[in-house]
Amino acid sequence: MSESIISLTTDFGLEDAFVGIMKGIILRINPEVRIVDLCHEIPAGQILEASFVAGSAYKYFPERTIHVVVVDPGVGSERRPIMVKTDRYFFIAPDNGALSSIYQDYPGAQVFHLTQRQYFRSEISRTFHGRDIFAPVAAWLSTGLAPQVFGPEIYDYLKLEIPQPRQLEPNVFEFQILHIDHFGNLITTIRESFFRQALSHASSQRFRLEIASRSINHLYSHFASLPEPDQVGALFGSTGNLEIFTYRERADQSLGVHQGDKGRLIFL
Amino acid sequence: MSESIISLTTDFGLEDAFVGIMKGIILRINPEVRIVDLCHEIPAGQILEASFVAGSAYKYFPERTIHVVVVDPGVGSERRPIMVKTDRYFFIAPDNGALSSIYQDYPGAQVFHLTQRQYFRSEISRTFHGRDIFAPVAAWLSTGLAPQVFGPEIYDYLKLEIPQPRQLEPNVFEFQILHIDHFGNLITTIRESFFRQALSHASSQRFRLEIASRSINHLYSHFASLPEPDQVGALFGSTGNLEIFTYRERADQSLGVHQGDKGRLIFL
Amino acid sequence: MSESIISLTTDFGLEDAFVGIMKGIILRINPEVRIVDLCHEIPAGQILEASFVAGSAYKYFPERTIHVVVVDPGVGSERRPIMVKTDRYFFIAPDNGALSSIYQDYPGAQVFHLTQRQYFRSEISRTFHGRDIFAPVAAWLSTGLAPQVFGPEIYDYLKLEIPQPRQLEPNVFEFQILHIDHFGNLITTIRESFFRQALSHASSQRFRLEIASRSINHLYSHFASLPEPDQVGALFGSTGNLEIFTYRERADQSLGVHQGDKGRLIFL
Repeated sequence: MSESIISLTTDFGLEDAFVGIMKGIILRINPEVRIVDLCHEIPAGQILEASFVAGSAYKYFPERTIHVVVVDPGVGSERRPIMVKTDRYFFIAPDNGALSSIYQDYPGAQVFHLTQRQYFRSEISRTFHGRDIFAPVAAWLSTGLAPQVFGPEIYDYLKLEIPQPRQLEPNVFEFQILHIDHFGNLITTIRESFFRQALSHASSQRFRLEIASRSINHLYSHFASLPEPDQVGALFGSTGNLEIFTYRERADQSLGVHQGDKGRLIFL
Repeated sequence: MSESIISLTTDFGLEDAFVGIMKGIILRINPEVRIVDLCHEIPAGQILEASFVAGSAYKYFPERTIHVVVVDPGVGSERRPIMVKTDRYFFIAPDNGALSSIYQDYPGAQVFHLTQRQYFRSEISRTFHGRDIFAPVAAWLSTGLAPQVFGPEIYDYLKLEIPQPRQLEPNVFEFQILHIDHFGNLITTIRESFFRQALSHASSQRFRLEIASRSINHLYSHFASLPEPDQVGALFGSTGNLEIFTYRERADQSLGVHQGDKGRLIFL
Repeated sequence: MSESIISLTTDFGLEDAFVGIMKGIILRINPEVRIVDLCHEIPAGQILEASFVAGSAYKYFPERTIHVVVVDPGVGSERRPIMVKTDRYFFIAPDNGALSSIYQDYPGAQVFHLTQRQYFRSEISRTFHGRDIFAPVAAWLSTGLAPQVFGPEIYDYLKLEIPQPRQLEPNVFEFQILHIDHFGNLITTIRESFFRQALSHASSQRFRLEIASRSINHLYSHFASLPEPDQVGALFGSTGNLEIFTYRERADQSLGVHQGDKGRLIFL
């Protein structure tokens, strides 16, 4: 299994040794595995953000990659550690909804409660299960063990509602800012498939996006296609969601918009 | 030696190419070695912080891992470059106290002064020994060379005092905030072994922690066990030190506490 | 080709999964390649900064390393994706000047326009060519393909002017702050070779650097050699450029200097 890959998504940041410690633990169990950082800057404890970031990235990895997602504000409580198996990937996380986007993509995913303590560290802290449970289980899985050996299949795992556009009137939808990326682009809850279908039903085939007292009425093809500073544009970005952006500035700052803020999408 | 591991702890940050350059240098010498980032966000020049972070992480790595610690405000001065060998690990660092926690854990560690310039880059700058000395020496060590070939054993290496609780009165100790982690938790100088022993000698088996006009009188099991916002809790965290935390907030911000601030531990 | 190395320099930051996604794509094509992060904190869209950071680091890597540089404000526009071959290294980037320092170091470099879409992802977004073009091309190149298979050689690639000291009077040069590093040191446009040559022509062999109402009239050997707080020093740093620094403080903050600010170098 020398080609095994483990990806790591956490809210641990990089100021401490938390991530490095997880890697040390993994390498003690499987010195051959390859470890890839997916993201360690999930805002502290934001489970849905972890679900979004891991959910927008996992599919670019080789089949059988083991994606570990540790955003775990309830560490040490009764929430369960779990492993998820789809036909292409594995996921390991606390059962707190951090894998909600995976359940949405793979309704037939199998979920296992991690109960077999021989695959954990022998001493388990109440504050760092990334080190004591998730890292060693990922490493053991990467050596070729079957998911079933780690614990029983469960069906009552926690699936959080992923924010969707909300219909206010027949032709008016309220959307949210789901994520603000490194460039300040505003990633909305509007998926391209949703937009295209709704637009095809609209009488005029035209639309208007409203956010922070600004309005946008057509889609741009790429960021540099916005002709002027001070303008606001929208496009379907690399995640497949509608993104709102400004010209060589951070849209979040120039519009004063934060994660969770709402806007309206009106089909004319 | 394909399974060799080198870990890197520095204050170089990630905005420059300093860390990437060290990795390039290492790979030119040993293309098979595995490099793991332990932490690159040690505050600039803070040697004791490097000692704490590396000291709380090294033991989770496979035996024979080479831990490189470069927090080096005196780079280019007369301070010596050194290698430390314990029965399980190697460490490479400037002789400025950055390995003090290692000397504490391994009183029998052997320390070598790196003098053999054939294992350095041929041209040595006065500002970047991470590139010119520490990375190439780590890479050569990872190829299987013995520590002795890099220079003579020394005994007068610099060992800094690691801050400890200070006894003010028979039942009163002053502690410090040693480190503030990514979540804002306050890691104190109180080790669990110290606390348990002192508590066992206390008449009532009860205690009170005082910091920033707040007081805490019992230990919680995990972060989410703190019942209310606005409360302050304490627990023994993943480093083995007592941590002070608040409920879903950053304790450093809600209490206005900084690294180095002091508090009191009173046994009742 | 198991020893192939790909380095990554981007302005993607680490808060999103952009970098992790590029790594996933690379590993799907070449599971054996080694990926090294050079820098992901290039300020958004700053092409010359990317050229400086990649240009100061690439040479420390093993021969045949593939350096990928994605700072790409024009992503999705007509700007071309290119590959550059020198006698030692490969570079992959948008044709927007991000490789200007490479062209300066290797005037005989060959530049190829990446046109062969079979080496791209099958679906190409207009906003993330790091994922859809640059990562897969780097991975295919690392499997041993020749640069020529990716597209035709071109000669009209974009080479940006790298800022140089500007002669104001026979003995007076204006320099710029090219880069501010993680420690707040001010890296100037003055190369050591330029300085030594100009100094050898000066009548007194003496000089004065002026910046932000401060002046410096000799070179220090290393950072800790500056005797006092509140002093300002200069030295030739690890990049070969003159750096201005202060004593255990950030020079950018204590002098109030920003990237692009200008100073004067006067030979007496």
